[in-house]
Amino acid sequence: MASPKLTRKELTELLRGEFPDLFGGEGAYDIDKVWHGGCVVRRHFERGSLRPGGTLSGATMMALADFAVYVAILASIGWVPLAVTTNLTINFLKKPAQRSLLAEVRLIKLGKRLAVGEVEIRSEGDEELVAHATATYSIPA
Amino acid sequence: MASPKLTRKELTELLRGEFPDLFGGEGAYDIDKVWHGGCVVRRHFERGSLRPGGTLSGATMMALADFAVYVAILASIGWVPLAVTTNLTINFLKKPAQRSLLAEVRLIKLGKRLAVGEVEIRSEGDEELVAHATATYSIPA
Amino acid sequence: MASPKLTRKELTELLRGEFPDLFGGEGAYDIDKVWHGGCVVRRHFERGSLRPGGTLSGATMMALADFAVYVAILASIGWVPLAVTTNLTINFLKKPAQRSLLAEVRLIKLGKRLAVGEVEIRSEGDEELVAHATATYSIPA
Amino acid sequence: MASPKLTRKELTELLRGEFPDLFGGEGAYDIDKVWHGGCVVRRHFERGSLRPGGTLSGATMMALADFAVYVAILASIGWVPLAVTTNLTINFLKKPAQRSLLAEVRLIKLGKRLAVGEVEIRSEGDEELVAHATATYSIPA
Repeated sequence: MASPKLTRKELTELLRGEFPDLFGGEGAYDIDKVWHGGCVVRRHFERGSLRPGGTLSGATMMALADFAVYVAILASIGWVPLAVTTNLTINFLKKPAQRSLLAEVRLIKLGKRLAVGEVEIRSEGDEELVAHATATYSIPA
Repeated sequence: MASPKLTRKELTELLRGEFPDLFGGEGAYDIDKVWHGGCVVRRHFERGSLRPGGTLSGATMMALADFAVYVAILASIGWVPLAVTTNLTINFLKKPAQRSLLAEVRLIKLGKRLAVGEVEIRSEGDEELVAHATATYSIPA
Repeated sequence: MASPKLTRKELTELLRGEFPDLFGGEGAYDIDKVWHGGCVVRRHFERGSLRPGGTLSGATMMALADFAVYVAILASIGWVPLAVTTNLTINFLKKPAQRSLLAEVRLIKLGKRLAVGEVEIRSEGDEELVAHATATYSIPA
Repeated sequence: MASPKLTRKELTELLRGEFPDLFGGEGAYDIDKVWHGGCVVRRHFERGSLRPGGTLSGATMMALADFAVYVAILASIGWVPLAVTTNLTINFLKKPAQRSLLAEVRLIKLGKRLAVGEVEIRSEGDEELVAHATATYSIPA
């Protein structure tokens, strides 16, 4: 794995500044790993994400997928906070457990204008995918 | 417009019971209209949805699209709270205003096992789309 | 409907030059209508598109959706043959008839770098959708 | 890799019977490998797939992605030729070479009613992805 432009520690610091409610400390997300071209982002379990039937909300997984690709892009090209999602597709594959969700991102395109990430989401400690997403970001000039 | 299986009022009541934090009262969502095959769902503006550059988070719009299709399905076939999203695709088209978002759903398939909704998201008072989504739900037997 | 940069006749001529096998004369496609921001493209029925169960191949509908968005973009901004698809999502909704397919495109974004089209595909003479697609094109500088 | 319900040879035979123009002999496609849960399908290069700028048509890659998931499903659950695509999303990532395309499928869900495949498409002899797709099939009862 090539080394990233921003380390896990640097990114955590910068994202905590930008998204104080969401990230670090009491926040919903943590970065577990970053490398050039990918990352693992953790979504801590919260009871507020529960839905009828004891599943976690699709919204929780979509937000995680979107955010994890953002982290992978920042890690790989440096701090461009105004990168914006243009497209996201998600397939929900099985009912997630009432545990942390882990999103593993692999950037499958890293161009000057567009980056595309593929995301595998799992319940912590389980091998099978609970969801799979792809997301495209537009990178400002 | 054909009449729905559940009216706006009945649905609001039932959803408030199921999702007390999200819906009705102080909640983030309201149903503006329902008919057989579609609905308009409102996402009230909240400062917590703001992102760098003054935009609203993609997560806010994805959650709205997903939820609005759920509402359209329940309105059209009756109360099946365990219907689950299998697939969602969203295109983000322009920066939303710092106002309510309105999601207008049209069900383009309403089968026994699968329903597909198309969603147009606009900032209140603006004609142009800020996002467009399609979502598929699996309907329990 | 605003008037397009290229008329139906001009586009048909130019596309016939670029795609002699596919378009005009004995070809698979014809343009029925164009306007600024959209078009209707016809895919003539061919027995080679049939699949087990008497349906038309998904490939036929995907190719039609992709091509129809291309036509709508060229009609709206002029001749940029090197515009390329970056993303396409299609939902197959019901079994198409053994007749021509009509794809109606509405451009929901027409930016400098990206254009997004929404496509409704119907069997000729039928109101219900057989497929629905969205496609994003990258427009060369 | 678990062993498939149908071997490469059995599948090639059956598909040649169902799609005599597309498959085997002079046809466009060949199966390179199958296993339980996936496969590699080859699309031979044909000049008819060329597009302006020397690229291969998006339609060629979409048809390949769709077909390759079909092959992976048949290999994994046996001969269900009436399985139909309900949804396909593709991201085009870089210009393919004027060579064979290889589609590698991994089934990320294999349920009773729905199966979802993830597809990586490469130009033969190149590591980088030219396209990435996900497709959902509905499996008849």
